[in-house]
Amino acid sequence: MRINDVLRDKGGSVVTVAPDTDVTALLALLAEHRIGAAVVSADGNRVDGIVSERDVVRALAERGPAVLQESVQRICTVEVHTCGADVRLDDLMRVMTEQRIRHVPVVDGGVLRGIVSIGDVVKRRIDELETERAALSNYITTGG
Amino acid sequence: MRINDVLRDKGGSVVTVAPDTDVTALLALLAEHRIGAAVVSADGNRVDGIVSERDVVRALAERGPAVLQESVQRICTVEVHTCGADVRLDDLMRVMTEQRIRHVPVVDGGVLRGIVSIGDVVKRRIDELETERAALSNYITTGG
Repeated sequence: MRINDVLRDKGGSVVTVAPDTDVTALLALLAEHRIGAAVVSADGNRVDGIVSERDVVRALAERGPAVLQESVQRICTVEVHTCGADVRLDDLMRVMTEQRIRHVPVVDGGVLRGIVSIGDVVKRRIDELETERAALSNYITTGG
Repeated sequence: MRINDVLRDKGGSVVTVAPDTDVTALLALLAEHRIGAAVVSADGNRVDGIVSERDVVRALAERGPAVLQESVQRICTVEVHTCGADVRLDDLMRVMTEQRIRHVPVVDGGVLRGIVSIGDVVKRRIDELETERAALSNYITTGG
């Protein structure tokens, strides 16, 4: 399975915020869409950063409530791990679990195509492994 | 594999907070321990609730910066999904992924023994499935 199949399955919509959006508006947006992170993008296509609920709580722990009036570009991660739509599910999952990355924007030709979360990836990888194991067990039981 | 094996592997320490801890102190604690949730417990043994970084950001989105001075008991989840140490890894993982639960305190005889995160569970379940698949493949290739 490739990331393209994941996007087809879950849909390719991504919530983006402009870099000068303030953190209060970001929190409202995350709650409204029931998500944990948004892509920071000035033009809605290029990935300029990613900002998560974790970035918000860590910044609050460091600098206090003033963070709520800051712009998201102050707290976001700008070195974003992105991937192409043709990447294999198991390869991406390995990178995400090893590097503890929760969200990966999917980019094709410089244009944002979607976003996959660790939950999206893990759910499908486990389905894939369970299917493979069942097929192998069946092969052994029935003799192929 | 059972949850007991996971705890033996990762260690059984759990960060707890008293119910009257304020949210600002909670955020400092989560940052210090690099974790996403803490167990709320008046006596350090009984699970009175669980409070996560998500609870904080959702409360901030609803009620604004005053939340930072509120006590964690105001924002925590009190109906906590806990499990025993003898629960099977695959059973717990199914519940966590289906119900989108990120953290499950492990309780034995009413006493808090540890906490497992979705990351802990998934990593080991995938290792388990990959090992099983390799054993089955090997059985087929070598004839057992």
